[in-house]
Amino acid sequence: MDLWKVPLLFSRLHMFPFFDLAHYVASVVALKEQRGAVEVSVRSPFACWFSAMLYCFGGSLLSSLMLAEPPVAFLAKGANILLASSVWYLVFYCPQDIFCRCFSFLPLRLLVAGMKEVTRTWKIAAGVAHADSHFKDAWLVMVAVGWARGAGGGLISNFEQLVRGVWKPETNELLKMSYPVKITLIGAVLFTLQHSQYLPIARHNLVFLYTIFLVIFKVKMMLTRCATSPLAPLEAALGHVLFGLGKAPSKVKGESATSSNRSSTCDRPSEQHHDGVKKRQAKKTE
Amino acid sequence: MDLWKVPLLFSRLHMFPFFDLAHYVASVVALKEQRGAVEVSVRSPFACWFSAMLYCFGGSLLSSLMLAEPPVAFLAKGANILLASSVWYLVFYCPQDIFCRCFSFLPLRLLVAGMKEVTRTWKIAAGVAHADSHFKDAWLVMVAVGWARGAGGGLISNFEQLVRGVWKPETNELLKMSYPVKITLIGAVLFTLQHSQYLPIARHNLVFLYTIFLVIFKVKMMLTRCATSPLAPLEAALGHVLFGLGKAPSKVKGESATSSNRSSTCDRPSEQHHDGVKKRQAKKTE
Amino acid sequence: MDLWKVPLLFSRLHMFPFFDLAHYVASVVALKEQRGAVEVSVRSPFACWFSAMLYCFGGSLLSSLMLAEPPVAFLAKGANILLASSVWYLVFYCPQDIFCRCFSFLPLRLLVAGMKEVTRTWKIAAGVAHADSHFKDAWLVMVAVGWARGAGGGLISNFEQLVRGVWKPETNELLKMSYPVKITLIGAVLFTLQHSQYLPIARHNLVFLYTIFLVIFKVKMMLTRCATSPLAPLEAALGHVLFGLGKAPSKVKGESATSSNRSSTCDRPSEQHHDGVKKRQAKKTE
Repeated sequence: MDLWKVPLLFSRLHMFPFFDLAHYVASVVALKEQRGAVEVSVRSPFACWFSAMLYCFGGSLLSSLMLAEPPVAFLAKGANILLASSVWYLVFYCPQDIFCRCFSFLPLRLLVAGMKEVTRTWKIAAGVAHADSHFKDAWLVMVAVGWARGAGGGLISNFEQLVRGVWKPETNELLKMSYPVKITLIGAVLFTLQHSQYLPIARHNLVFLYTIFLVIFKVKMMLTRCATSPLAPLEAALGHVLFGLGKAPSKVKGESATSSNRSSTCDRPSEQHHDGVKKRQAKKTE
Repeated sequence: MDLWKVPLLFSRLHMFPFFDLAHYVASVVALKEQRGAVEVSVRSPFACWFSAMLYCFGGSLLSSLMLAEPPVAFLAKGANILLASSVWYLVFYCPQDIFCRCFSFLPLRLLVAGMKEVTRTWKIAAGVAHADSHFKDAWLVMVAVGWARGAGGGLISNFEQLVRGVWKPETNELLKMSYPVKITLIGAVLFTLQHSQYLPIARHNLVFLYTIFLVIFKVKMMLTRCATSPLAPLEAALGHVLFGLGKAPSKVKGESATSSNRSSTCDRPSEQHHDGVKKRQAKKTE
Repeated sequence: MDLWKVPLLFSRLHMFPFFDLAHYVASVVALKEQRGAVEVSVRSPFACWFSAMLYCFGGSLLSSLMLAEPPVAFLAKGANILLASSVWYLVFYCPQDIFCRCFSFLPLRLLVAGMKEVTRTWKIAAGVAHADSHFKDAWLVMVAVGWARGAGGGLISNFEQLVRGVWKPETNELLKMSYPVKITLIGAVLFTLQHSQYLPIARHNLVFLYTIFLVIFKVKMMLTRCATSPLAPLEAALGHVLFGLGKAPSKVKGESATSSNRSSTCDRPSEQHHDGVKKRQAKKTE
């Protein structure tokens, strides 16, 4: 087989059912790791299910809202909903928690996380193309919709938390972007440039390279326990050149340095640290 | 007259103006019984009016949003808005509070509450049919839209409260469903099954039977001061079989028992009890 | 030149680029004056940019949502976004804060504020006409959309604040309307009446007179440091006649008097006073 055909064949992969399944598993397990999620699953299975659906289909929901298409459209994809609901059921209500125990096997986690990242590429590309069919050559709309489709669950996290009775207004993904949201934004920009033919690269090659990048860094961050974001130097440079952030007075500089350190660590494990920071901030605002 | 024709004739009833009027009266009086609503009516009549409209037309608004139709469409129905606004004016600003005093006469309350339940059936059926015209055979969309149309005021209660300057993120109708929201969900499922012809029953018969059920239990709950929800045993059984909720350890079990007791009591009179619970929860989350 | 032609020629003015520029400058400077906005600009330029776009294009966004048109449509207007983004960049990140220092020159502030008010008239008129093209003769929809288009930034302020990590549920523009929101509502009613031909005045004359009124009072309020709203007597009279607010018992009367005093002062400079009031209210609700 010709090696040059790999990207082309790769870009013709179907997401349903296996990659979608991986996305649902990774999303629902991430939901279960949120503080308070297990209590919600006991108090109100319905709120828990709805929250899980927002994790799984948040991108589709948000991009529908942005383009004034019916946001319930995702409910019409019966097979996907059934798959995601089964995953939700197994993750939260499996006797003896068998499902989650199996899933704590590291190679399986890595496989699922890698496959989830593949769906991200597909979603960004689909979002960009879909936006282009609504607004001709509106590259900012293409970036926004591609980003929303790829990182939807994160962007609507404030409202997803509200379903579970949690409200953390002092933070959101725009104020303190997590690594997946940032990398999705970069991906949306790249796919928009490619779609507008400013980027001299074939679509399947970009799909292939971007996915490889996503998977490698995801796996690396999981193995090394998320030490540093590969984007941190780029961000620091941009922040310095564009917004003069490095030239800020020492106190503010300290704060911004903290926040970029924070964003460079992985989102989930540092939850407790985050909460501490939030409490401090909450005190300040009071 | 042939007795078998009663359901058919019943299903041809027009909601406007009398049944709609009853719905508006019951909704606006329920708003006035909310804590702080009277103060809002003095501070800002406009916010009070908007809140009342959300109570009266919440279902229409929410189902429009879900199907990406203009959410302001309800404002185009001039006669309904005029009727609802008149009711709002009489309930909140009638000299000597004459309107509310008249309405405290129990038989009148029962009549109005019964008529309001009739409008619920009509809304669910209309919502299901409307969703079907957008998405062919997407039964989950039909359930969602029928439910939203029938129980809209409840489902958007967090945002309705926000209009009045109240924000209670620790609870919502998904996390702790009230009886009307639950029974509307069941109704939406039944009408969807009937519409998809899985339920071997004529539409007018289902309309008739479901409405009878709604009205009888509403009246019974008002007369007996809302002792137990007729759905509590069903919920307990489902919770046990599907989610193993009965098998949970004692502490969690106690919590879930409390919550099902809570949901089995009526929503309005136990407001103070609710608040007590919320404060405790708020303390826990701090 | 014939003096009678002035309104007609005035009503043919193009908003882009100069009047739109003034609107963006006034809006972004108002954002920068919000407490905490400068910290957000250091912590997360992206959230700051998005917040600025909500200030600049809030009306367009809100009216799109109301009519179920794509809310991202404003992103498709490349030139406007570029202009607004440049203004945002200069206001927040200009070295030595040169831009804001220049802008503190009073005659310039007055000019920009006056030009911003001109764009308000154009937006209201456009919103009313646009709503009429969707719903024939639905005058309430026309008022709502015209109002949303003209005062959008204010009406969505709760959600704009959320982007910056600020959440003040105890107040919103419906509960405590600021002067610009009120005067926009009146404008929306006038333009709707004119559009429905209940107001015997030519469109360009109404545009001219309403704009003159807006600009004069805006300039007067800036020069006199916003002593009294020109609408206060009208409001008091309406409140008395329609809602019997003057007849309320002394305590409530005191409160309502305070609130109308409050609304008659300008929105920005009394921020600290507002916050004090809010804290008191927050204590009460606790």
